[in-house]
Amino acid sequence: MTKLVYDFGEGGRDMLDLLGGKGANLCEMTGLGLPVPPGFVISTEACRTYLETGAVPAELAAEVDEHLTALEQRMGKALGDPSDPLLVSVRSGAKFSMPGMMDTVLNIGLNDESVQGLAKQAGSERFAWDSYRRLIQMYGKTVLGVEGFEHALAQVKDTQGADSDTGLDETQLRALVDKFKQLVHDHTGEPFPQDPRVQLELATRAVFDSWNGERARLYRRQERIPADLGTAVSVCSMVFGNLGVDSGTGVAFTRDPGSGAQGVYGDYLQDAQGEDVVAGIRNTVPLADLQDLDEVSYTELLRMMQTLEEHYRDLCDIEFTIEGGTLWMLQTRVGKRTAGAAFRIATQLVDEGLIDLDEALGRVTGVQLARLMFPAFASTDDGSRSLLTTGMGASPGAAVGKVVFDSAAAVASAARGGDVLLVRRETNPDDLAGMIAADGVLTSRGGKTSHAAVVARGMGKTCVCGAEDLNVDVDARTITSADGTVVREGDVLSIDGTSGAVYIGAVPVSPSPVVQYFEGELAPEDGDDLVQAVHRLVRHADEARRLGVRANADNAEDAERARQYGAGGIGLCRTEHMFLGERRHLVEDLVLADGPQEQGVALDALLPLQREDFVGLLRAMDGLPVTVRLLDPPLHEFLPDLIELSVEVAVAEATEKSVDPKRLALLDAVQRLHESNPMFGLRGVRLGLLIPGLFGMQVRALAEAAKTLSEDGLDPRPEVMVPLVGAVQELEVVREEALRILAELGVEALVGTMIEIPRAALTSGQIAAAADFFSFGTNDLTQMGWGFSRDDVEASFFSRYLDLGIFGVSPFESIDQEGVGRLVRISVAEARDAKPDLKIGVCGEHGGDPDSVHFFHDAGLDYVSCSPFRIPVARLEAGRAAISSSTRRP
Amino acid sequence: MTKLVYDFGEGGRDMLDLLGGKGANLCEMTGLGLPVPPGFVISTEACRTYLETGAVPAELAAEVDEHLTALEQRMGKALGDPSDPLLVSVRSGAKFSMPGMMDTVLNIGLNDESVQGLAKQAGSERFAWDSYRRLIQMYGKTVLGVEGFEHALAQVKDTQGADSDTGLDETQLRALVDKFKQLVHDHTGEPFPQDPRVQLELATRAVFDSWNGERARLYRRQERIPADLGTAVSVCSMVFGNLGVDSGTGVAFTRDPGSGAQGVYGDYLQDAQGEDVVAGIRNTVPLADLQDLDEVSYTELLRMMQTLEEHYRDLCDIEFTIEGGTLWMLQTRVGKRTAGAAFRIATQLVDEGLIDLDEALGRVTGVQLARLMFPAFASTDDGSRSLLTTGMGASPGAAVGKVVFDSAAAVASAARGGDVLLVRRETNPDDLAGMIAADGVLTSRGGKTSHAAVVARGMGKTCVCGAEDLNVDVDARTITSADGTVVREGDVLSIDGTSGAVYIGAVPVSPSPVVQYFEGELAPEDGDDLVQAVHRLVRHADEARRLGVRANADNAEDAERARQYGAGGIGLCRTEHMFLGERRHLVEDLVLADGPQEQGVALDALLPLQREDFVGLLRAMDGLPVTVRLLDPPLHEFLPDLIELSVEVAVAEATEKSVDPKRLALLDAVQRLHESNPMFGLRGVRLGLLIPGLFGMQVRALAEAAKTLSEDGLDPRPEVMVPLVGAVQELEVVREEALRILAELGVEALVGTMIEIPRAALTSGQIAAAADFFSFGTNDLTQMGWGFSRDDVEASFFSRYLDLGIFGVSPFESIDQEGVGRLVRISVAEARDAKPDLKIGVCGEHGGDPDSVHFFHDAGLDYVSCSPFRIPVARLEAGRAAISSSTRRP
Repeated sequence: MTKLVYDFGEGGRDMLDLLGGKGANLCEMTGLGLPVPPGFVISTEACRTYLETGAVPAELAAEVDEHLTALEQRMGKALGDPSDPLLVSVRSGAKFSMPGMMDTVLNIGLNDESVQGLAKQAGSERFAWDSYRRLIQMYGKTVLGVEGFEHALAQVKDTQGADSDTGLDETQLRALVDKFKQLVHDHTGEPFPQDPRVQLELATRAVFDSWNGERARLYRRQERIPADLGTAVSVCSMVFGNLGVDSGTGVAFTRDPGSGAQGVYGDYLQDAQGEDVVAGIRNTVPLADLQDLDEVSYTELLRMMQTLEEHYRDLCDIEFTIEGGTLWMLQTRVGKRTAGAAFRIATQLVDEGLIDLDEALGRVTGVQLARLMFPAFASTDDGSRSLLTTGMGASPGAAVGKVVFDSAAAVASAARGGDVLLVRRETNPDDLAGMIAADGVLTSRGGKTSHAAVVARGMGKTCVCGAEDLNVDVDARTITSADGTVVREGDVLSIDGTSGAVYIGAVPVSPSPVVQYFEGELAPEDGDDLVQAVHRLVRHADEARRLGVRANADNAEDAERARQYGAGGIGLCRTEHMFLGERRHLVEDLVLADGPQEQGVALDALLPLQREDFVGLLRAMDGLPVTVRLLDPPLHEFLPDLIELSVEVAVAEATEKSVDPKRLALLDAVQRLHESNPMFGLRGVRLGLLIPGLFGMQVRALAEAAKTLSEDGLDPRPEVMVPLVGAVQELEVVREEALRILAELGVEALVGTMIEIPRAALTSGQIAAAADFFSFGTNDLTQMGWGFSRDDVEASFFSRYLDLGIFGVSPFESIDQEGVGRLVRISVAEARDAKPDLKIGVCGEHGGDPDSVHFFHDAGLDYVSCSPFRIPVARLEAGRAAISSSTRRP
Repeated sequence: MTKLVYDFGEGGRDMLDLLGGKGANLCEMTGLGLPVPPGFVISTEACRTYLETGAVPAELAAEVDEHLTALEQRMGKALGDPSDPLLVSVRSGAKFSMPGMMDTVLNIGLNDESVQGLAKQAGSERFAWDSYRRLIQMYGKTVLGVEGFEHALAQVKDTQGADSDTGLDETQLRALVDKFKQLVHDHTGEPFPQDPRVQLELATRAVFDSWNGERARLYRRQERIPADLGTAVSVCSMVFGNLGVDSGTGVAFTRDPGSGAQGVYGDYLQDAQGEDVVAGIRNTVPLADLQDLDEVSYTELLRMMQTLEEHYRDLCDIEFTIEGGTLWMLQTRVGKRTAGAAFRIATQLVDEGLIDLDEALGRVTGVQLARLMFPAFASTDDGSRSLLTTGMGASPGAAVGKVVFDSAAAVASAARGGDVLLVRRETNPDDLAGMIAADGVLTSRGGKTSHAAVVARGMGKTCVCGAEDLNVDVDARTITSADGTVVREGDVLSIDGTSGAVYIGAVPVSPSPVVQYFEGELAPEDGDDLVQAVHRLVRHADEARRLGVRANADNAEDAERARQYGAGGIGLCRTEHMFLGERRHLVEDLVLADGPQEQGVALDALLPLQREDFVGLLRAMDGLPVTVRLLDPPLHEFLPDLIELSVEVAVAEATEKSVDPKRLALLDAVQRLHESNPMFGLRGVRLGLLIPGLFGMQVRALAEAAKTLSEDGLDPRPEVMVPLVGAVQELEVVREEALRILAELGVEALVGTMIEIPRAALTSGQIAAAADFFSFGTNDLTQMGWGFSRDDVEASFFSRYLDLGIFGVSPFESIDQEGVGRLVRISVAEARDAKPDLKIGVCGEHGGDPDSVHFFHDAGLDYVSCSPFRIPVARLEAGRAAISSSTRRP
């Protein structure tokens, strides 16, 4: 028979799976000898049985009885004893923290009789009746699903003219208990249960049921927490912070979670229970004030905080209660912290000798580092800021600009050269052009998964959403705040995408010192402790990592910047950017060419320009590999828009104006090249095979560039990459031509391929035979693996999918490990089987995403390539991945 | 040491891998005691070593010596003997027949001396010198790569006024030999090799090298023949059909390969060698005439044909030579035959007791059955036909129509209601609209992989291409034939897509009797022997097959037809067809609806129409399952074209005409719904999740239809299929709503999903948990697995890819087993792991493709679904697949 119930003295924090986070940490503190009120944990296993079979395990009641009896003996009180009742709390606690779950039920064990005993023991009728009304209220709401308690309480307070519930006396609370009991009876048809064992049993079941509540399921879907883990239930003897002025309750942090500084941080509330702190009914005092109120407890608390921090070797947050001068620890866990604090604390702990650098690296994340690299409003307000309101910080950064209310105005205003903030009630796909033109987005509706939030994060634009105090009137072109302030189109606002703050006027933006450090403008020794912490940890990551980090860069300027950020080469140079701007007309010539000879002339004109681009790039990356992708997008991308051109010609004809014959020829070509689904049409290697000489011209330009630099004594290392290969035969044909040209010019270069078509991943064993390297194009692999085009779907249904929990995060942000990642794993395994030393990298945008970097490390890639700005993140995460996989047990 | 050379007496037809087709069959005939000229086979293993290392195996020379010596002893002649030389032929022969490969070299062993000995032995100087010049010509061309022999021969014939080479006498042939030797010397810098062993060795190497010749590689890429098999080389002592009137050479078939009738079929040419028959230099006589020329040989040949047919238990074709009244067998193989003959012969052999029905089923193919189902021109010409020319039959069937020369004319003419033939020099993507409008396509350029051929086959349109005798003048709107006949636009032509014949005027088209049988218009006993053969074999396939066969049908009429063709249910009903025509305006209302309430009104209007459709469909398929796919395509497909509408509105505004406000609202909606890549955008389940009530309306209509029919005493079996699922969560949300509606109406129905997104295939274990069935949508799976949109790429680059050998066949015609098929296998394995009794089918067009049906059988599917017309093909192939997998060794 499996053991289902564990005394707090029996468990520990390594039993997270079985006891949940809260239970395991209560056990851990008990084991450390800290004053935890005695109790026990009902395991997740009991919950799983209940969820699978619909009934609690047969043996659970007996086990609970046994532990309850032991608890009663230890406490010298019995549950439901009319003269001196034992009270317990019941709390949920799963392996992963799930903030959407059921709340705590306190004071179980009270009924119409035992409330008298409690009053006698505590010496306070008021306390006893207040405790009883709290039980009925919490139990009624969370176990029985009865609503209306808050309303009833507010009515009584109103009638009595009481500001808060502490203003109600014993008599009023007795009346409130009657009213609450009546509410329960009215809603459930049954009286409030008087049997404490029934209270305990039903509360336990309610916690189990809450695992499958709607909010919990949605949360799990979004966070990808397995649905079959179940929750544990902690049953803990009650201690009371509301027994008078020598009692109270509080939260404490072992360090400042904002800055990481060591000290005494927290809040304390006298004569109160835990939920009063959360409810904000009365104002808390700073934890340091406890020293004056109860020095003994204060000193003991500080000692315990020290014990916990040394034991957990990290910042802990703590909930505690003082009952009549006795300190009790109710909860602890490793505490959340800001990005800056994470870096500072990690290196502080190293300096204190508590952890080594490997472990410190495990304590910081790429997401935190990225957050430190956004520009921000100066951290101190000189008093000049005027806060309009605070919404949700939906996409980080700081943006300052003139208010506009629609896409057209945003585009027009941006075109005139100013910074623009697009303000909408909520956005939809129509607003896309405006979002692209704007520097930031502000909405009055919608949460972190709203359209505005999702699209802005995807674009890397600062966004504040759900600023519900603001009334956005698009017709009147005004924003009106709750206090009546009116902002008009053209006025300047400043928004903070992290805090959600919206300021009137322009708030000065500070560059990130971390960015200044990476760009070499700030030596680590000149930086503050944050810069030094970042420097130490990124350096350590570089020593630890197995993955190379390259940059996606298309020109010499980006390449130089990438080198500063620590790039070990270029993993993706997109040559299509070299066909834009002034060179567009050369592409038009190529498209309008009549036959191979005219095509040849057009290609010959492009060659010297391409060569010049490559010379710059190879020079900037002297001595490091530079992967050049041959032309990828469909040709029509370089031509005028079909609709505009059709309208132009039709209108000219209808109004009997003359039409430029070149425009007519262009219209003809654009119609001919028009595709219903160009992303999935004639592009990449398909285009290269259809237009003879196109890829050859590019290879020749690259080879000539390398030859020139070699002759100048430099060390160019070009690599040719063929895009959109689906079958080995495609690659063979292009490779043959490329090798011929390279041999002709006496230049050495690897010739490899993108793996971005699912079929390429599935036939990698064959393709590897014709490739010197693979580079995963995970953007296209995601598009094709999911069968959706990013341009179309991000705007139209991603926010709905995030709301429904179908995605936890956009698969374009972080690689979908189950589906797209499976293709990567299949490809790597089969390619390496065929060619063990094949070099394999990734150059999709996922190359700079923290979770994805871990995935690529585990999948056995050799390098990731990402935008220059993401390189520090990739370096950090590559180091973390190497350390976490080397310490992971097999 | 591996044996590399096999005497004809050592091998047999089970040694195909090692001896190639030709060699293995020569051994087999030798083993049967048939008169095969002695010889030996150099194995494919020797070739493989040569190809891998660049050198023939060291031991090969000794083995060849050994066999050569034995051959010389047996023949009583020696290679190169000046007085009585042994001559041999050298022929390639791989496991698979590869018609693009190297030709035979005959008469090896002749040189300036031995030619004299041959003359003496044969008693003919002319014969000896003719044999020598043939050696130099064949050897020079195929081994040494020298060109110009044909030209030199023609010059000599011209000078001598000879009609054919038999008109040249000994002296002229001697002079020709000198000229040929000079040609060799001029081109190679070396004299023609006089050493017969050198001749043999170089000819052997040349055959080996030919394995990697350009044509051979292309052929293998197209036919997906592995590149590492290598070819065998047969070395056979020469016999001569050109020794006078009691000699000759011929080909024979044991049955008529056209009709399957038993009898004496073949051609004979007196006093000639094999290549003369092929070259068509002189006219052959029917084989039956041999009886009069040489009754002994004739009778013996017939006896041997009988022996071979009984031994091979199939139609054999044979090459033979008579040398001075002695019959020699030079080659045999199981012969090619027409589709009708295949069915007839298979059942005849059953009736003759040579094979059983299982084997007979293995002898016919779905491709052949499909060919029998096309309409055709009447098989007998009453003399009224006027043949214009013959091109290549590129896509089968018979088409009659008025000639048009461009797309616009085709569309216009078809719109006026007539049958149309589109005639072009060659087609390109611009002609697509015309090809769709036309009944048939005729081109004067391009082969079977030309654009016209590929696209026409994809569309199932009759096509004749490469009719090079025709001069197509699009500007003049005329076709001129080689004899000066002129056909003008509007004239009627008839084209035969099988034979390639092009007739002037309308040739009557006969319906296929096989189709009449399947449609129940012709009882099997009333049909001819072909109909009876088809009836027997398809019935036998039905008994043998494990795969169910369902139909893709969208309305009651198609469903009834499908039932006649033997469908066991409907595997795919596309509901989008129910939103077209008059109902289009309801979809417009849905799209233009402002908010959920107006959307609800639009959906309510659609519900009764949908219900009516489903009633018809379920009634037609009473008692059989009917799978209804919820709405799949993007909404904009039901709306006007964006370009046309943009032009219409812009022109109206420019010309100051008033614009209908509804058109403006529509333009607005079409712009809003416009997607860059609609095939990969907001469609399928994505649309269902975004428009609340849409899928619910469809499920309700289906459930109400089923309820109505059940109340009428029928047995409706609806199944709900969700399209475009990529993640199990999508399916869960839709399934929940569907089950709720079904329960509400008390209707039972399976709820399953298409598997058409690569990610769905890769996460099938999860998806199976939420599905009652899977149906592979292999069209979309191919689009997404390859990352191309069928609409765009078939027309733009498939013909180029077929030419390059990147595809052997379009992956939309026959499933790409390596890539897309791999997804199917992964999906089936993981889904069945999760849910062993999950029903799995396929409803993409591959469901009716013969090779694909075998694949789906092997992959373990439960059923295939295809268009009604393909059902007999699927039934036949499903039976063949079951038999072939049950007889295959594990």
